[in-house]
Order: sequence, then structure tokens, then C-alpha cells
Amino acid sequence: MVIMKAEIITIGDEILLGQVVDTNSAWLGQLLDSLNITVHQIVSISDSREAISHALDEAAKRSDFIIVTGGLGPTKDDVTKETIASFFQTTLIRDEQVLSHVKSIFEKFGNGRTMPVMNYGQADVLACSEVLFNDVGTAPGMWVEREGRCFVFLPGVPFEMRFLMEKRVSPKLAAFRSEHSIYHAHVITMGIGESYLAEMIADIEAELPSYIRLAYLPKLGTVRLRLSAVGREAVTLKKETDAFARRIASRTEEYLVAEKDVTIEEAIVEKFTADGIRLAIAESCTGGLLAGSITAVPGASAMFDCGIVAYHNRIKQQVLGVDEEVLKAFGAVSEQTVIQMAEGVKRLGDATYGIATSGIAGPTGGTPEKPVGTVWIAVAGPSETVTQLFHFRNDRHVNIERSMAQALNMLWKLYKKDKGK
Amino acid sequence: MVIMKAEIITIGDEILLGQVVDTNSAWLGQLLDSLNITVHQIVSISDSREAISHALDEAAKRSDFIIVTGGLGPTKDDVTKETIASFFQTTLIRDEQVLSHVKSIFEKFGNGRTMPVMNYGQADVLACSEVLFNDVGTAPGMWVEREGRCFVFLPGVPFEMRFLMEKRVSPKLAAFRSEHSIYHAHVITMGIGESYLAEMIADIEAELPSYIRLAYLPKLGTVRLRLSAVGREAVTLKKETDAFARRIASRTEEYLVAEKDVTIEEAIVEKFTADGIRLAIAESCTGGLLAGSITAVPGASAMFDCGIVAYHNRIKQQVLGVDEEVLKAFGAVSEQTVIQMAEGVKRLGDATYGIATSGIAGPTGGTPEKPVGTVWIAVAGPSETVTQLFHFRNDRHVNIERSMAQALNMLWKLYKKDKGK
Repeated sequence: MVIMKAEIITIGDEILLGQVVDTNSAWLGQLLDSLNITVHQIVSISDSREAISHALDEAAKRSDFIIVTGGLGPTKDDVTKETIASFFQTTLIRDEQVLSHVKSIFEKFGNGRTMPVMNYGQADVLACSEVLFNDVGTAPGMWVEREGRCFVFLPGVPFEMRFLMEKRVSPKLAAFRSEHSIYHAHVITMGIGESYLAEMIADIEAELPSYIRLAYLPKLGTVRLRLSAVGREAVTLKKETDAFARRIASRTEEYLVAEKDVTIEEAIVEKFTADGIRLAIAESCTGGLLAGSITAVPGASAMFDCGIVAYHNRIKQQVLGVDEEVLKAFGAVSEQTVIQMAEGVKRLGDATYGIATSGIAGPTGGTPEKPVGTVWIAVAGPSETVTQLFHFRNDRHVNIERSMAQALNMLWKLYKKDKGK
Repeated sequence: MVIMKAEIITIGDEILLGQVVDTNSAWLGQLLDSLNITVHQIVSISDSREAISHALDEAAKRSDFIIVTGGLGPTKDDVTKETIASFFQTTLIRDEQVLSHVKSIFEKFGNGRTMPVMNYGQADVLACSEVLFNDVGTAPGMWVEREGRCFVFLPGVPFEMRFLMEKRVSPKLAAFRSEHSIYHAHVITMGIGESYLAEMIADIEAELPSYIRLAYLPKLGTVRLRLSAVGREAVTLKKETDAFARRIASRTEEYLVAEKDVTIEEAIVEKFTADGIRLAIAESCTGGLLAGSITAVPGASAMFDCGIVAYHNRIKQQVLGVDEEVLKAFGAVSEQTVIQMAEGVKRLGDATYGIATSGIAGPTGGTPEKPVGTVWIAVAGPSETVTQLFHFRNDRHVNIERSMAQALNMLWKLYKKDKGK
């Protein structure tokens, strides 16, 4: 069986109401892409009988592989399983292995309370399905093959869904590879706008054959260039696509972050670890999220020792060694203060580079002189400390995000400059 | 015009490939819900001519209000505008006001470089549309009314999309309210599973009339209960729904976080500020993200002064005052260490409560005695320090998330206990 088209259906009013962000679909999209399966649509629907039936009908018309997530919890607002059963004209049967697993989970975590009756229903599965046993939760997944199509039903809890995809579904999918190869090459840039980049590489782009497509994916100071190639000869395809990627990377050298699909945080952790250099971070307006973005990368402990969230001036003085006179004369949001914060945290963490952010994230705290969105950032390196002033003037969340992106951009530029010496 | 059904279409291969998470739709879902407009479907499609045409055709059949985001950037991978023009059987015309705005942005941020030619296309709009002027970016939005339906086209960059929705689209939408009222009431709980909660309030749920629906929205230790009511009499509807919410809140008092739709972080910032108490945070495995989750809440600076990311033992000793002997005898991931971290950061920040996390987030760093996922958490309060050991055994990202959720849960429980004294 050749699978060409996949589709993801996520069930749940909470997604339509915007009460949760659908991160499952992005994770599934990446996994399926790595298995050479193309997702051509993601649809989020209400957990009503009508919406579920309609989505399954539509999906069966146009897709070969359909992944449905959500709607498998124990409470009454889930009608998914019954609706699916009537879609397949089958019944629900109780699976004894799943039932004893559900019971054992409640014995372990129930603090001696009896398992609620509604949880028996967790062990009910489609009679026509192969059960995907869920080691990490109570709701099992189900795999159904029907008229040449595969349907997979998974719980919506992200780590349960991921467990089932990785351990149960992926091995089964390995058998369904397409006869066409899909190959992606990436060039990651920072500090240059999408359209300047496009101008800079226009001649290379014009040379691309019809089966290699270039996409610009801008996000907060970073532009990710993705070359997507489709063809029958995997080896040639890779070689040819990589050659174009190399030419683009060489042309954009000044702004280059990496020649593979990594985030700027991942690039920093990788390069700093390889070079044996360390980073320390002092934060005011970014409130811990800048350190968090670095420490979220596996292996970050090899290049990161110390982060200080210094909201209060007393902490800036006591922990980072900022002069009381500087704070009095120039204020917490000033070039003089961020310089001392960056140099102070670099010293404290015995690091090669120290970053500091101080600004007014909003929505309150702004003044006519320093309105909301005013942010000073400093990076202290081995031979110099660089600073920059920004005026973002967005909401708190965006001001914090942009401060983080600019801080990492400044760090990366100084690191490349030092490295080039 | 009465708008009953809305639909969101997001355009972009990067969403299908999972390279970006679609946060726009959740934001739009919340905004539309607050305007009494029901989103019944969210669909993500490829930025190809065929997919865009098909999605517009389908949406026009079933929805009254259609929001399309993405596909309006300047580079060649965007075919959206041409496809939309043929869908409406109209042409693209150059808007002079938009063009001079685009030019002025390039003059301001272009560092003296000439504006790339392709950016002229940013000023091309549908001849049949009302232009939604974009103060914060180069791509304008467009509003089209056709056969009793509204179509809105917006750029995919989140803060540009938000600006246009808030400043341009919402005011126009105010005219299109439904004659039915929709009302939501919320009860937020923490520390009790979905099914136990359902058992606990089964009798109240059984009394709900058909026009009030109860949904369970579980997420990492929190369960959000949402009562959704639909009817003609807004005042009565609110009163009746609020009364059910009050009964549920009263029944679940022990686990109650709030009787409105807030996150646990928002509840903590609000209550601590009101009570004039302060929080300080020392983090190892959560790496700054716990402090970041608190400081991301507007107004957090009123109750938060200080966060320490102490990855290296030297920082634990030097900044937090953890004993060298304790680290040697029990290790960084131990009850003794987190107690000293929590009490140390509480002292340093002159706070009422201090939280500390120390664990092995993974994927490496585990030992047979302390495998990946082993996490100790301590909360030091005014009269006692509580600790708890967790074994998460998931991936780095999930281990960090669950540590954060448990730390906030422990803080909330201790705060409620102290408050009850």
C-alpha cells in the first residue's frame, strides 16, 4: 500500500474556543514528514456527533491515512467513540487487557479511592479495530483499516498521543512508504528580512528545477529557508538539493545560523558546547524565559551554569553587583544598568558571555520618557560589551518574545565576530 | 445580518509540516467567542492554488464568516492573493496609501537599502475588498462581503494579525451579533483527576438543563470546568449558569483555584498581590521557565522580585546558600538540597514563599538510582517547608512542564492551608 495523502482531525470544543493551542498537529506533521508522508490538511472540529461524522466522511473521500486525536476521555462530554462505531458500522467491545491496565493505574494513583464507574468505558474499543495499548494513560488508541485506508484514533493528551505514535503507530507505518522520495534541506538566517534575503539569492532561486521548491519561513528575526524536493531517485535528489542549500548558505554567510533545521537556541547550545564556552543570563523584563529557552535544549547544562531573574533593584545590586548610584542616576531600564547586569552575571557564572535584558514589558509601568516596549539589551563578551536599545511597543507577551529574539541575535553576532578574529 | 457560524482557514505549508505551531487560531477562537460568534471549524491547508480554492469553496457553503490567515508575505511562495482574486472573479489593484506606508517602513528600517521590487506587490489588494490598513507591518488585511457572507484576509504574522483583528475587524463585527446569547462560566480546579471530579459533582451535572452544557478540560494537574449556555434571555441565562457554577465551586472547594477562566499562574499573581505577599523561585531542572510562567502574567512585578536559575552547584552554594556538605552527601537532586534552595531563595528575595526545583529533565544525566524524570520540589512558606518527590519519566520538555505544574500546585495548596489558618 502506497500512502500519499494524510490528514489530521483534532476533536474538541476547547480548540475551537481557543482555550488550548493545538500543539499535537505540529508534532504529528513533523513526524509524518520524517516518514515521507505528506499531510495535506489539518482540521479541528467540535466534539459533536454531526461534526465528527462529517469530518470522517470527508476525510475518507480524499485521504489515505487519517489520524484522529482527542475525544477519548472518560467524561460525558466525549461522544467520539460511539460516533466512530456507527461510522464503521461496528460495535464497542470491552477489552479485558485494557480494563485491567486502567484498574491498575487507579490502584496506583487513586490514593485508595474506588475507580469511578465511568472509567470502565475507557476499556471499550471498536470491535473492528486493532487496539494500540497505552502504557502511559488510561485511553487506548485504535487502528482501523477500511477500504484501502488507515484510520488511527489517539487520545488528545499530548504525551499519551506521542507515546502511542512513537511506540505503536510508527512501526506499523514503516510498511506504508511512498514510492516517491521527499527531501528537505534548510538554511537558517538571522538579522535580515525576508525580502532582502530573497533579493540576495534571486539568481540561485531562479535556477531551481521545478521539483525543488523554496519556502521562506520568517519568525521573530529568524528566516528559515526550506528547500523541498520530490522525486524518485533519493540519492540524487539529496545531492542536488544539498548543493543548492550550500550555495544559498555561502551567499548569506553574514546572517547564517545553521545549514540544518535548528532553532537559534539549539545552534547556540551546540556551538558553545563544541567550543567549550559558557553562557550566563541576567533578566529583568524577560523574567526567566530567556534562560528557559536555552535550558529547554537538551544538553544545555554543558554550556549554561547560571541565570538570574532580577526584578527588584535590590537583587540587581546584591546578586549582580550593579552600583546603587547607577540605578539612581539612570534607572533600571538604562544602558548603564544592563551593561553592569551583563558583566555581573558573566562574572558570577564564570562565563564567556553574559546577556542582560531590562525593559518595560507592559501593560503598565511606562512613562513618557520610557514608554511600554522600551528595552535595553547588553551582551558582555570576552573582549567587549555591546548594547542596543529597542522600542517594541507591543503587548507584554510580544515585547518579551522580541526581547528574547533580539538578545539571542546580539549574542550570535558577537560570537561570530569573536570567532572570526 | 446574523452571523451564526464562523470558520478559520490558515494557509501555509509550514503548519502542515509542523514547523510552526498554529497559535493564531486559538487566539482568534477566544476573540470570536467573546463576540458571541461560534467557530465551528479550523482548517489548515497548503499554500497551493488548488488547496486555497477548494477551502474557500467549501467554507462559502457552510459558514457565514470566514477568516483566512497567512499567505500574504512578499516572497514568491505566496500565491494566495492571486487565487483569492480568481475566487471572487475580481482583479488586484495597487493601493497608493498602502504603497506609501510600505515604502515608509523600508525607509525607516532598511538601513539605507533600496526597497526590493517584490514589496510593491504588498500594496496590491482585491478590487472588491475594503482594505484593512496595517499600521504594524507591510501586508494589509482585506474585508470582502459576498452573497451574505463575510471574508476577512489577514497576514499570518501573529502580532500583525492581532492588531488587524482588534483595531480593524472587531469594530466592524460588532454590527453582526447573533440574536442568541452565548454565556460561559468557569470553575478551575487543581490536584484532582477529571473522573473523580465528575463523580463528585454528578448530581449537579444531572440537574443541568439541556441548554447548559458542561465540559471537562484537563491540562497538567488542572481541570477547567466550563459551563456553556445558549439562549435568548442573556440576563437570566447568566444568572442561572452562574448559580450552577457556584454550586460546583462550593462542592469542589478543596481543589478550587478560581471561579473564572484564569490560569493557575494568573490566580497566584492576583491572590498574592491582593494579600501583599511575595514569591521567589530557585530553579534547577525547570531552568527559568517557572519564573517565566509567573513573570509572563501582567502585574507580576507586584509579588515577584527574584528568580535564580542555579544549574551549577557553585551557584546553589554561592547565591542560595546551599551547604557544600549537603550537596556532597545527598547530591543536587535530593530533598535536603531543594529544602535549602527554597529557603535560601525565600531569604534572598525577602519573600513569603520560596519554590525550588531540582531534577533530571533528560534525555541524559540519569543514573539507576536517580533515573531521568526524578524531580524533587520544595515550597518554603511562612511556617513550614513542604517537599515532594516525583518520577515523571517522560521527555525533557514534558518533565519540565510537569515539574512546573506540580510546583505551582504545591505552592497553591500550602498558600490555601496557610490562609485557612
